[in-house]
Amino acid sequence: MTTLSVAEGVPEARNYPYNCWWVAAFGNEVGRSLLGRWLLDTPVVLYRREDGTVAALEDRCPHRQAPLSIGQLKGDTVECGYHGFCFGADGSCVRIPSMDGAPPANYSVKGFPVKEVGPLVWIYVGDPSVIDTVPPPPELPWMADPGFATQSGRMEISANYMLLKENVLDLTHLVYVHASSFQVADWTDPPEVISDSETVQYCQRFVNSPLAPGYALSLGVPPGTPWNREARGAFLSPALHEGCVDFQAPSKPESQPARFRVVHAATPVDQTHMLYFWMIGRDFAKEPEAMEHLVGVISKGFDEDRVVLEAIQAHANRRPRRGSTGERSVKADAAGIQARRIVARWMEREA
Amino acid sequence: MTTLSVAEGVPEARNYPYNCWWVAAFGNEVGRSLLGRWLLDTPVVLYRREDGTVAALEDRCPHRQAPLSIGQLKGDTVECGYHGFCFGADGSCVRIPSMDGAPPANYSVKGFPVKEVGPLVWIYVGDPSVIDTVPPPPELPWMADPGFATQSGRMEISANYMLLKENVLDLTHLVYVHASSFQVADWTDPPEVISDSETVQYCQRFVNSPLAPGYALSLGVPPGTPWNREARGAFLSPALHEGCVDFQAPSKPESQPARFRVVHAATPVDQTHMLYFWMIGRDFAKEPEAMEHLVGVISKGFDEDRVVLEAIQAHANRRPRRGSTGERSVKADAAGIQARRIVARWMEREA
Amino acid sequence: MTTLSVAEGVPEARNYPYNCWWVAAFGNEVGRSLLGRWLLDTPVVLYRREDGTVAALEDRCPHRQAPLSIGQLKGDTVECGYHGFCFGADGSCVRIPSMDGAPPANYSVKGFPVKEVGPLVWIYVGDPSVIDTVPPPPELPWMADPGFATQSGRMEISANYMLLKENVLDLTHLVYVHASSFQVADWTDPPEVISDSETVQYCQRFVNSPLAPGYALSLGVPPGTPWNREARGAFLSPALHEGCVDFQAPSKPESQPARFRVVHAATPVDQTHMLYFWMIGRDFAKEPEAMEHLVGVISKGFDEDRVVLEAIQAHANRRPRRGSTGERSVKADAAGIQARRIVARWMEREA
Repeated sequence: MTTLSVAEGVPEARNYPYNCWWVAAFGNEVGRSLLGRWLLDTPVVLYRREDGTVAALEDRCPHRQAPLSIGQLKGDTVECGYHGFCFGADGSCVRIPSMDGAPPANYSVKGFPVKEVGPLVWIYVGDPSVIDTVPPPPELPWMADPGFATQSGRMEISANYMLLKENVLDLTHLVYVHASSFQVADWTDPPEVISDSETVQYCQRFVNSPLAPGYALSLGVPPGTPWNREARGAFLSPALHEGCVDFQAPSKPESQPARFRVVHAATPVDQTHMLYFWMIGRDFAKEPEAMEHLVGVISKGFDEDRVVLEAIQAHANRRPRRGSTGERSVKADAAGIQARRIVARWMEREA
Repeated sequence: MTTLSVAEGVPEARNYPYNCWWVAAFGNEVGRSLLGRWLLDTPVVLYRREDGTVAALEDRCPHRQAPLSIGQLKGDTVECGYHGFCFGADGSCVRIPSMDGAPPANYSVKGFPVKEVGPLVWIYVGDPSVIDTVPPPPELPWMADPGFATQSGRMEISANYMLLKENVLDLTHLVYVHASSFQVADWTDPPEVISDSETVQYCQRFVNSPLAPGYALSLGVPPGTPWNREARGAFLSPALHEGCVDFQAPSKPESQPARFRVVHAATPVDQTHMLYFWMIGRDFAKEPEAMEHLVGVISKGFDEDRVVLEAIQAHANRRPRRGSTGERSVKADAAGIQARRIVARWMEREA
Repeated sequence: MTTLSVAEGVPEARNYPYNCWWVAAFGNEVGRSLLGRWLLDTPVVLYRREDGTVAALEDRCPHRQAPLSIGQLKGDTVECGYHGFCFGADGSCVRIPSMDGAPPANYSVKGFPVKEVGPLVWIYVGDPSVIDTVPPPPELPWMADPGFATQSGRMEISANYMLLKENVLDLTHLVYVHASSFQVADWTDPPEVISDSETVQYCQRFVNSPLAPGYALSLGVPPGTPWNREARGAFLSPALHEGCVDFQAPSKPESQPARFRVVHAATPVDQTHMLYFWMIGRDFAKEPEAMEHLVGVISKGFDEDRVVLEAIQAHANRRPRRGSTGERSVKADAAGIQARRIVARWMEREA
């Protein structure tokens, strides 16, 4: 048993690029009051301007360092709750109550670029001078497609965000972590993996394989009915993962598949905590009762993931701690390992 | 956005002198039982001798390091709760039950000089060899003046003590932090500031200015009545701040003013925690019901301060944390900045 | 008052040898489910094989570092709850669900040697290459002797394990810590101490000394009856301390004494926490009601110790913290100091 080692898989140093678009919130979390949130080691305050667009500022008054989020939103302006300094939506200081005339130019806070894409609010907290070189947030048309019924949720998880990224890139965990929730028993082999320099994707095809009860229910056939499905999952950026399952009746191989989609957006709060935003959608079984049932199963399942990831992180957090024999990987980790390499390149670019 | 910086205003290193008199307790907290308290990175046990005077010892038995405060007070002697070592009120070890004869001289604990002045118990935990060069505790006659009705309270605040000192030296925060409690709407301009090498004082005069509801109630006139008042606040030592408001009817400019007084004594527990002792007094509206009402308003208001100070400190405590653009000051900070300089000189003197 | 010093008695560096047998659990805590436990900075999972013998493995899957203890026990095999990797009771990886064929040899976890001796399960988490040079767990025949009635308990104590070891080697604390529980008033003098390179033992003889109420009750005589007793206590290893009291009626000096025994096994979790396993036994007053009463008194007494030890450790854990005048020892500490020296030699041997 060796001493503590970085080769154990749980990162011991920052592994999230600042120069990247990340999900800050669901759009429906942001309104006409101040929402304070730590993201990427950075205090952020979010709100909607009167025209409905989202603004994001450094959540820390440059005067005496109070979080602006304990202040007031007045029009498009944030008023600090301590001495009333006011900041415009771009971060510029527009009023200092105890001072006559215009505030000095450098009494501003950082304003962070924001993009609202479908139900997600994206933020860029990195170096402004390189923002044009940074890939834009991935867009997933189904998230705003009225042909899909969708649901979403948010969790705080006390674990490094890459633990979640790797979790959703290796679904051989379904059989163990989600034995009682998703009940998918046939995901045992490592999938095919395709990657390029910025993304990695797995693909797994199931032919005439018995449907798990949840799948069968949504498709209107008895549990265990042999069915065809193709599952794909893609690391689209450090911030976003998309999972897809296309279902097709074996008797109708040429028909349009029934489509299930899921987004996993894991935003680091710091090295050992993340905000986890998820959204699911499908273009079948869209009735409210069916969707409500689906959300129940999904919530239970994602909570099972949380328990595992937090247990791993809690172990890694212990000090003193004797190191393990090191990390051992298998073919099913191919996509996750590729994802780590992509993230390492992001980190190198901003070093 | 720079990396973590000491220029942000929240201290990253010790900023409280040990060689200084600090408030350890209210006199009525100290009696014939042992009161353990961490003050200035130092464990302290306080009690009253049989003659009523206060004693303060290092709260840690030199034998096996048990806190003496979990032991027993016997006469003027503290008996350790672990093996019964006994210490006199000067810290000398007077009995070791398992040892015949007198204990060795160096089996003592530190005894700390104490002064009881009015309702406050002061302690000196610093270098004994320089105590004569250290200014004595400031005395405020009104605290023991029967012409004043007084009330007091104590809070534990998870913030560096200087955050409170600066808070009470810049009352432009009244309008924002205490909008619903004190309701003082006219404190917008920076006050006049006077300082010397050891103290700093602000002075603000309000002429024919509408009285806040609380002020008006105590003076027996309708809220909003134009009135004259002079507000002063003084950093008298790192340990003590005095605030004063003198009220005078515009129609009787030569009359004796109605006097309101407040003491803020913030004693560092450590770098990010303080004990906050406050006392208020006035020589008008002294009936019990009026004072009770005042205490309710004051308690609400000081709790509003606590929320702000703890939010600032909690932000500053985060690790990792990306630094701010730095601290930006305005004229209203003049007194607070002067106080920092005075404290810096205290620190230099003991370096 | 000096700065923080290691001379204060509360260890500031690891003071527990890994190359030593330690108590991991009571036998009746370990069964056919997985018991995860941090011991000696090491995650351990314990369980019983189908043949009833105890197995102990590193509680951390080498794949993605999940604690194995959140998985399943299947036969003698532990299945990881994350991706289903299976490990035999010796730690070898016997199955990887997503991989055909036998797992690579180095995909194993550490298996820790275990010995079950009477009611105790011992573990060795140290260097396997030197295990033969390490003394075996001490055996205490009375623990499994049907002539003794026994009871046991376990506590988690937030203190360094040596604080407990020293506590039980200096019973002059009885008079102070346990004044209201054990009520032993006559243990004031330091006992005789005998030591060799690996053990240290004290011996205290009481002749015609009034019996404490608990002792008297168990012997069937009135409290305060003069009686003879001999109390001995032995540091048998860093892991185990045995205490003995032999009672003898003054009128029957040649008779077989009534024997009371106690084991204190303190296993470090880390530097500031321990698991404390205790067992008591006696060959008299063995009726269930008498033993139940004894357990009540013992539990109260050991909790009094916990309060003191945690108070000492909590003081020592404070940062920043001004150091004490240093540790001062007396003759009654002779056995404890000898124990520290023995432990220091254990540490040197594995350095």
